[in-house]
Amino acid sequence: MTVETTLAVALVSGGLDSMVAAARAREDGHRLLALSIDYNQRHRLELAAARRIAKLLGAERHIVLPLDLSVFGGSALTADIAVPKDGPSDGIPVTYVPARNTIFLSLALGWAEAAGARDLYIGVNALDYSGYPDCRPEFIAAFEGLAELATKAGVEGAPFRIHAPLQNMTKADIVREADRLGLDAAISWSCYDPAPGGLHCGLCDSCRLRIKGFEEAGLVDPTHYALSA
Amino acid sequence: MTVETTLAVALVSGGLDSMVAAARAREDGHRLLALSIDYNQRHRLELAAARRIAKLLGAERHIVLPLDLSVFGGSALTADIAVPKDGPSDGIPVTYVPARNTIFLSLALGWAEAAGARDLYIGVNALDYSGYPDCRPEFIAAFEGLAELATKAGVEGAPFRIHAPLQNMTKADIVREADRLGLDAAISWSCYDPAPGGLHCGLCDSCRLRIKGFEEAGLVDPTHYALSA
Repeated sequence: MTVETTLAVALVSGGLDSMVAAARAREDGHRLLALSIDYNQRHRLELAAARRIAKLLGAERHIVLPLDLSVFGGSALTADIAVPKDGPSDGIPVTYVPARNTIFLSLALGWAEAAGARDLYIGVNALDYSGYPDCRPEFIAAFEGLAELATKAGVEGAPFRIHAPLQNMTKADIVREADRLGLDAAISWSCYDPAPGGLHCGLCDSCRLRIKGFEEAGLVDPTHYALSA
Repeated sequence: MTVETTLAVALVSGGLDSMVAAARAREDGHRLLALSIDYNQRHRLELAAARRIAKLLGAERHIVLPLDLSVFGGSALTADIAVPKDGPSDGIPVTYVPARNTIFLSLALGWAEAAGARDLYIGVNALDYSGYPDCRPEFIAAFEGLAELATKAGVEGAPFRIHAPLQNMTKADIVREADRLGLDAAISWSCYDPAPGGLHCGLCDSCRLRIKGFEEAGLVDPTHYALSA
């Protein structure tokens, strides 16, 4: 008996979370289409990491789509606003990019429909990124509902599934999940504001979360940090 | 007393419909941010029309954002699939671009949030474009719900309004509305497959609708067509 494997589109940013989410798509038996958005993010080493990850996971195709969100401004990740280095603060961080996950999921949806894929994977998690509105389960559920109304496939009775397998994981859980899946975390990139020499800065919110995740998971962190808090 | 006018982001494709929708944003008292997407559409004369329209309507800023949707394939408007010339057929047309309006509204939402705008205008209408799932009122309503969950502004209690003022208009209604608003339809572009010399082809679905709209409205059509059906 031949088992037909279906395509899935996974958003691969280059970070640890989306690497684990994309690996889950493979574990779920999907052939992989990897989508990365070159949105003029300041931390461009992410995209090099995304290429390594797509290759490692055996993606059938990896599209790095240029989309210059910096023309809109409004975020420390694309505009000339300082990335905080003194630890997480309350509320929605300045590293929030307006409507980013809505935009990225829309693009993944477009590719999925064109390619005949029905499964989308995104590495959001609601625990460590509770400050980002578009990382919450209610956002993911609403997007799944929208996708059904928005597309020819949805209208014709073949709706899309939006998978956010890390939804309820802490960073420590994600580090352990990467380990379980046999992934080398060293090829991923988390830092918002790289130090000279292509090192993780060690001080931005994203680096702090990564460091804490490995500590809490009790696993060796293979990342090279410039400084530690 | 000073009346504060608020910003609105209008999607301006260069077509007649989005020109009328953007003009309605102005009539509603908004200052205008015009957004056009250069998605490698075959009918690139649209973008020149978009520039004329943004200028005519006094947009404070006009962004023409490059976004190459042709990498995904799947549509006669971006891929090497023939544009039909023998009149509308049943079902969803091959000129449907997967998830296009979801992608475009997401981008408009990103700009709106970054700029402090709360109103988005899009020129979809459900009557003449009933074959396109992402032109229907239920899609627009779902996107408005998503926008509230997806954004910092929405979460903080300042949700977005998605205006589709042409929703229930026929093309004839839209032609009359353009006339009422004093807009010169000649500066807009509708054709999916321009004829040599930069003329509207006169035969594609979009040209047929435009021709019929002027006829039914009983108004003079200023458009130069290469051929007529």
